[in-house]
Amino acid sequence: MQYRAWFSCVAGCPGQHPLNEVLYRCPICGALLEVTHDEEGLRSRSAAAWMRLFDERYLRTRWPYGSGVWGKKEWVQPHIADENVVSLFEGGTNLFWAERYGKQLGVEDLWVKQCGTSHTGSFKDLGMTVLVSTVRQMRAEGKPIRAVACASTGDTSAALAAYGAAAGIPVVVLLPANKITAAQLIQPVANGAMVCSLDTDFDGCMKVVQRLTDTSKGDTGIYLANSMNSLRVEGQKTIAFEIVQQFDWEVPDWVLVPGGNLGNVSAIAKGFLEMQRMGLIAAPPRLVCCQAAQANPLFLAYERARAAGRDMSLDDFEAVQAQPTLASAIQIGNPVSLSKAVKAIVETRGMVLQATEEQLAHAVARADRTGLFSCPHTGVALACLEQLIESNTIQKQDRVVVISTAHGLKFTEFKAGYHRETLGFESRLANHPVSMTGDPEQAVGELHRLLDDYEQAN
Amino acid sequence: MQYRAWFSCVAGCPGQHPLNEVLYRCPICGALLEVTHDEEGLRSRSAAAWMRLFDERYLRTRWPYGSGVWGKKEWVQPHIADENVVSLFEGGTNLFWAERYGKQLGVEDLWVKQCGTSHTGSFKDLGMTVLVSTVRQMRAEGKPIRAVACASTGDTSAALAAYGAAAGIPVVVLLPANKITAAQLIQPVANGAMVCSLDTDFDGCMKVVQRLTDTSKGDTGIYLANSMNSLRVEGQKTIAFEIVQQFDWEVPDWVLVPGGNLGNVSAIAKGFLEMQRMGLIAAPPRLVCCQAAQANPLFLAYERARAAGRDMSLDDFEAVQAQPTLASAIQIGNPVSLSKAVKAIVETRGMVLQATEEQLAHAVARADRTGLFSCPHTGVALACLEQLIESNTIQKQDRVVVISTAHGLKFTEFKAGYHRETLGFESRLANHPVSMTGDPEQAVGELHRLLDDYEQAN
Repeated sequence: MQYRAWFSCVAGCPGQHPLNEVLYRCPICGALLEVTHDEEGLRSRSAAAWMRLFDERYLRTRWPYGSGVWGKKEWVQPHIADENVVSLFEGGTNLFWAERYGKQLGVEDLWVKQCGTSHTGSFKDLGMTVLVSTVRQMRAEGKPIRAVACASTGDTSAALAAYGAAAGIPVVVLLPANKITAAQLIQPVANGAMVCSLDTDFDGCMKVVQRLTDTSKGDTGIYLANSMNSLRVEGQKTIAFEIVQQFDWEVPDWVLVPGGNLGNVSAIAKGFLEMQRMGLIAAPPRLVCCQAAQANPLFLAYERARAAGRDMSLDDFEAVQAQPTLASAIQIGNPVSLSKAVKAIVETRGMVLQATEEQLAHAVARADRTGLFSCPHTGVALACLEQLIESNTIQKQDRVVVISTAHGLKFTEFKAGYHRETLGFESRLANHPVSMTGDPEQAVGELHRLLDDYEQAN
Repeated sequence: MQYRAWFSCVAGCPGQHPLNEVLYRCPICGALLEVTHDEEGLRSRSAAAWMRLFDERYLRTRWPYGSGVWGKKEWVQPHIADENVVSLFEGGTNLFWAERYGKQLGVEDLWVKQCGTSHTGSFKDLGMTVLVSTVRQMRAEGKPIRAVACASTGDTSAALAAYGAAAGIPVVVLLPANKITAAQLIQPVANGAMVCSLDTDFDGCMKVVQRLTDTSKGDTGIYLANSMNSLRVEGQKTIAFEIVQQFDWEVPDWVLVPGGNLGNVSAIAKGFLEMQRMGLIAAPPRLVCCQAAQANPLFLAYERARAAGRDMSLDDFEAVQAQPTLASAIQIGNPVSLSKAVKAIVETRGMVLQATEEQLAHAVARADRTGLFSCPHTGVALACLEQLIESNTIQKQDRVVVISTAHGLKFTEFKAGYHRETLGFESRLANHPVSMTGDPEQAVGELHRLLDDYEQAN
């Protein structure tokens, strides 16, 4: 059985475009593309047979199917020869049972999907393995792709650089000149990417990216890995598959996802909805997109629709000027994946919430004290979770999953700022070192007195 | 079948001490303890049955056996009730096929075990889950343990704080007053440890630790998690099990491990030798302990024995004053686990090598350009690997595994220093950003010229 998938226009234009074509937007209307799978083909196996196959492959040694992404290869990118897969064993991340944090909040069945415990430290690995594998496949087919490029200072450039380096495919990272320091960019720098400092601002960089995506000029030698590339969504949607696998194919009630460019919430919805259509699950969970209040255009659209008593639509949306936020990766006022995300929220009976800087920082601090080590974006989702519990929307017995998008080790300055109380608001959960004597006998006595105080306070 | 294990003296004194006793050293001679398993009991299952059981459990959902450590529970710490296990889904880390790096060096079967892709970002999670679970078990049995303590600025305190926080067990981190900054210590600070700044130097802190380990005084309320605690070795030895599982139960020819306090090389040897005795494997790989030249007492002992034409013994050893090294976690002149490590090297027909600061830094830079993102300690092992290939000791067809001990995200300053060329030696593999025009049309042309140069150079 040959499984098939192709690019199609999200706005509904006709046409099936091959996944190995250098194409980023619908050639008719310019809208985003999405990967559509031949679901009749996928139905050649029963839902039960797919579930068994996915479980058999999960984290096992048979290349490349042990990867959380490539274990679902037929549903992700069926056109890649196994030898062209560029995999760093992505996925399979811990679904952390947040027992103590949940008890504090009053929910018992709370889980955090630790997508940041990965090769490059963020969920971006899931999509990048699909994109870079597709590029390797195209190069193997003789397509003249010389390099893969993106304009990013963050997790995207880190993931692209690592996968490119593993595959031996040149990577170009485009940035405004004043934005480049070796420390900020140490992942692409160390992984040997060509880091290009452009004599312009970020808008100017985006113009270069636009020029590169304008495939009508016939210049397709530099392939773009930016977030409009819908191949990445196919990898990221496997988060949905893994969550239900990790619950032995039960679906949680709620899934909370931080949202900026809105690619991840779209991807996770796509995964759940495909599983529903194919009969692997009965219904998707309710998806909650969690935005920083400093960069909240989807939240505003959702609130407009709610005030009018109807489902959110694209007409409710207005771009905003995003303000600086600790959750820097979601500081986006005009999200690329807007149309997909609106659909995702409506089709999963989802919600959109927002969290302030203080709320996200306190939520991280509270969760960290129970063993997590969350990034500020995950903090936005945790803060929204706290609101939904407080409003009794999420109830005591509900099963809830929060998507953690990056490893806290990428955000140690944010955490140090909180505990040093330099973030500009009261860090009421700050943890300060305690000074003590150096005399051994006395120190042991002091330690026990410290523990007396601790036990009384807790 | 009830499986049994106990503490015994590494120097051979009689006595079996329960694992739930607060005991760090042999009560007769003061030597280290090690965990000994009732191998007759373990033989109630065949080797084939154990292998099948380990594979069935590996990374699956049945609590707590999906953990790479607890999937081997009977061989690790059989006395813990499942509900007292404190697990963050440790182990199961990628065995990265270093295809491009290996090709550059001239070996085709080179693998890097990515132990740092974990909850707290280092291999210490593997041992800490065993130690903290044992403490939780003791507390459940009514033992008056108020807290767990360690004296560490690094990965040990990070792992202890996270596991303690997840379990709700108070954690104390002891440090000299001038060594404490919130940024260095952000993991224990964020995870809510009591970080105690002692008015003394590091030796003074060790005196407090000694006082706490002096269980003859009857003061056992603060349990010690320092590296002499042999429960941690039991968790770390599962690295050996995972490596052979990931090769479908084949044993590699070589395993290279960075060595400072020498707990990890001892643990990995213990794992292989136990598997050999129980018939799961025919023979262990040759273990190579890799030391920084700035802190090389085991290397010096090995060289003394080699010059005399005999196996290394404890008599060959002299402590040294360790000098500062980029591989800061192995800057140790008098290793705690010395006696275990000497045995490990001799019994696996192993070797000890050393690497200079320049060698370790270049090795990291070379490997990173092929998709890795290694810490400086892993760099020591990579540099020793390069030496062994150059001397033709490791040959083209050999299967080699390098143990990567921490995530590179913990060492971004080291990497930035290399690429900024501020480490005090020539960074000949430094990657510098390239300045370019901001005009879109011109930029695309410049990008292609840059790629011309790149393709000619590679």
